[in-house]
Amino acid sequence: MVPNLVTALTGPINELEARVLESMPAIERWFRLEWMEHTPPFYTSVDLRNAGFKLAPVDTNLFPGSFNHLTPQMLPLAVQAAMAAIEKICPEAKNLLLIPERQTRSPGYLANLQCLIQVFNQAGLNVRLGALDDELKAPVPLALPDGGTLLLEPLVRARGRLGLKDFDPCTILLNNDLSAGTPAILEDLHQQYLLPPLHAGWAVRRKSRHFRSYEEVAKKFAKLLGMDPWLINPMFGQCGQVDFGEATGLECVQSAADQLLAKVRRKYKEYGITEKPFVVVKADNGTAGMGVMTVRDAKELDELSRLTRERMSVAKDGQPIGEVIIQEGVPTHERVADAAAEPVVCMIDRYVVGGFYRVHGERGIDENLNAPGSDVVPLAFAESTQLPRPGAKPGASAPNRFYMYGVIGRLAMLAAAYELEATDPDAEIYE
Amino acid sequence: MVPNLVTALTGPINELEARVLESMPAIERWFRLEWMEHTPPFYTSVDLRNAGFKLAPVDTNLFPGSFNHLTPQMLPLAVQAAMAAIEKICPEAKNLLLIPERQTRSPGYLANLQCLIQVFNQAGLNVRLGALDDELKAPVPLALPDGGTLLLEPLVRARGRLGLKDFDPCTILLNNDLSAGTPAILEDLHQQYLLPPLHAGWAVRRKSRHFRSYEEVAKKFAKLLGMDPWLINPMFGQCGQVDFGEATGLECVQSAADQLLAKVRRKYKEYGITEKPFVVVKADNGTAGMGVMTVRDAKELDELSRLTRERMSVAKDGQPIGEVIIQEGVPTHERVADAAAEPVVCMIDRYVVGGFYRVHGERGIDENLNAPGSDVVPLAFAESTQLPRPGAKPGASAPNRFYMYGVIGRLAMLAAAYELEATDPDAEIYE
Repeated sequence: MVPNLVTALTGPINELEARVLESMPAIERWFRLEWMEHTPPFYTSVDLRNAGFKLAPVDTNLFPGSFNHLTPQMLPLAVQAAMAAIEKICPEAKNLLLIPERQTRSPGYLANLQCLIQVFNQAGLNVRLGALDDELKAPVPLALPDGGTLLLEPLVRARGRLGLKDFDPCTILLNNDLSAGTPAILEDLHQQYLLPPLHAGWAVRRKSRHFRSYEEVAKKFAKLLGMDPWLINPMFGQCGQVDFGEATGLECVQSAADQLLAKVRRKYKEYGITEKPFVVVKADNGTAGMGVMTVRDAKELDELSRLTRERMSVAKDGQPIGEVIIQEGVPTHERVADAAAEPVVCMIDRYVVGGFYRVHGERGIDENLNAPGSDVVPLAFAESTQLPRPGAKPGASAPNRFYMYGVIGRLAMLAAAYELEATDPDAEIYE
Repeated sequence: MVPNLVTALTGPINELEARVLESMPAIERWFRLEWMEHTPPFYTSVDLRNAGFKLAPVDTNLFPGSFNHLTPQMLPLAVQAAMAAIEKICPEAKNLLLIPERQTRSPGYLANLQCLIQVFNQAGLNVRLGALDDELKAPVPLALPDGGTLLLEPLVRARGRLGLKDFDPCTILLNNDLSAGTPAILEDLHQQYLLPPLHAGWAVRRKSRHFRSYEEVAKKFAKLLGMDPWLINPMFGQCGQVDFGEATGLECVQSAADQLLAKVRRKYKEYGITEKPFVVVKADNGTAGMGVMTVRDAKELDELSRLTRERMSVAKDGQPIGEVIIQEGVPTHERVADAAAEPVVCMIDRYVVGGFYRVHGERGIDENLNAPGSDVVPLAFAESTQLPRPGAKPGASAPNRFYMYGVIGRLAMLAAAYELEATDPDAEIYE
């Protein structure tokens, strides 16, 4: 099933789509040159919001947990990309150690692990699962939705190397975003590749740092295409030392929200957009859709309910929220069967390997869709092809739309590459 | 439509399929290590024959002309592989010059060119067509089956570089197999990549050289899997100084055919195969299905008809046949809708990007199917996936069968890499 596109979309996004399509060879070359200078994250997923008048990434995940949403038709692309990735990192590798999230019991997440194992297995690696859990002393079978099982094994650390009993991997692939902090067992690994690196974990990463890099990338790209970077870039502000529970530091959030709303209003006026602007306040180190709040007027922050304050106090794995990003809200004008939908682009190495729509029947177009009750619809291409079709009417071709999503997804991935370079604790500094 | 598989197949091939599937990570790693040492041809297609008791390549094409037979579902794989290929060769490239066959008027071949242009365009290159034709003085439009046109332009040579008017390519991609000889305009190109290299053209290439390399590859691979290399390797002999028209040198062919038939008979006996052995006599530098003859008994060579002798005298582009390869005949036991069928595997760089069945309703299982009247059926995977499914009954799973085809296709591609290294006129020799 190809999700229905909102063909009523008009204006800047259709112009952007046309511009992106006609510039395809130039865009691909531009990415090629960027990847000569910058190393892409090992794998990435990017949440996009398509407002019709702008298309922007709102979250970039460096530990994607949604490979199970790729259709079977897309898996060969994932395998090919995984082959290319491994070849660069550790061509002689036999073994890959995959470290999952601690909360591994959800059927969807287990299906994600199963898919990752399949992809890397077919790319030529023996894959086993190691638990980031000191209490796990013996292998534990995990029941899969399809009736099979996965085996989760205790990690074995010996000097500079990490592995399992009788399993010495060349590469350790983290599918755990380290929200709970950086575990000592992963530190100071020598002679082995730990991917993504520790500073990609949410113990270190900040959304504001990412979107600063994204802004840089969006400006470069907008220059290449001769367009306003705002069309693909969500503006943002940030605040440290915020405590929603104690209601301290909220004046910073309020003032940042106010300023940002004013900036968005000016942009809307410039483009003749009549919608009501909003901003989204998010934990700067948050993930999994936690610690997210939509603000339509800065005054709303005066009268936060106890429930909202509690919800905004803790991020994933019970981490307190002390820093927030205030991001321009991008309404989603995409609909799948009447539900608000946002596209998610999945990448391995520098390649787009697939995508899906995250839909939520009970959320508004200006709300976070990554919340309990959300569902997914794969971007499958039944009769169509995944490749762009130059010449099709702007806004009317699913493959063209998806190519544009893939371009913006890759811009966010490139921003993550910039971000990881800038935050690398082991980077050599040349002055 | 998934072509029906001959599920009645039993014996060695199903064992091979099971062995190949269970060894998948080891096989992929083995290829990865081989590609560290050897450069894959830019693109390759391999004709396979599946006899049920053995599966072997019978022809390896380094200028594939059948990209139009890939299904739309497979094109993203081709684009991704093309991106990886370009990145290695000429990452800064903007332009690719594609040099087609001189006989470019067949709708199928034009569709092949259109597909190649689309793939490289979407991989990020401006692609234009240059004619290897001194008589072409101005651009000529070529009408495409779908109503579009391609523009064929005169080549412009300036010192060490080749291009078109106002078009200076980094890479020149030959889709012309140079059967008619190596044109001077392609010689001594500096600062540009000519791919495949000139010595991959049929003016230089010999099938016997290729199958000698393939034998070496097959032995290595058979050792990895612990199996008899004969199961994937067609035995062969060769003869120089043959003239079918004048009926001279035929005693060499007769004696080679006789010896080879005896060897095949011994192998059939070893495996309890009751079929009648045959050999195929082919022009050693032949292509496009020309100059091919099935021989079931060496005595047949005593009484060749005038027609057969004429047919065996000239290869593509009117080139006289003076050398032949005598190859073990591999009957094809695959059928698509009652017609004899042979799988063709298409590759770009080191990646399998798709395949199709070549079928011929009027040819026997021991005959050349690449002949007038042949047709193709894409190996499309409607409800299924292109990826192998461990656990499926051997011989019953199309994806598993196709994975095995992809492995044997890549072995032939690796053999071509060995072959091109051995025949490289510019190779430095280390003793």
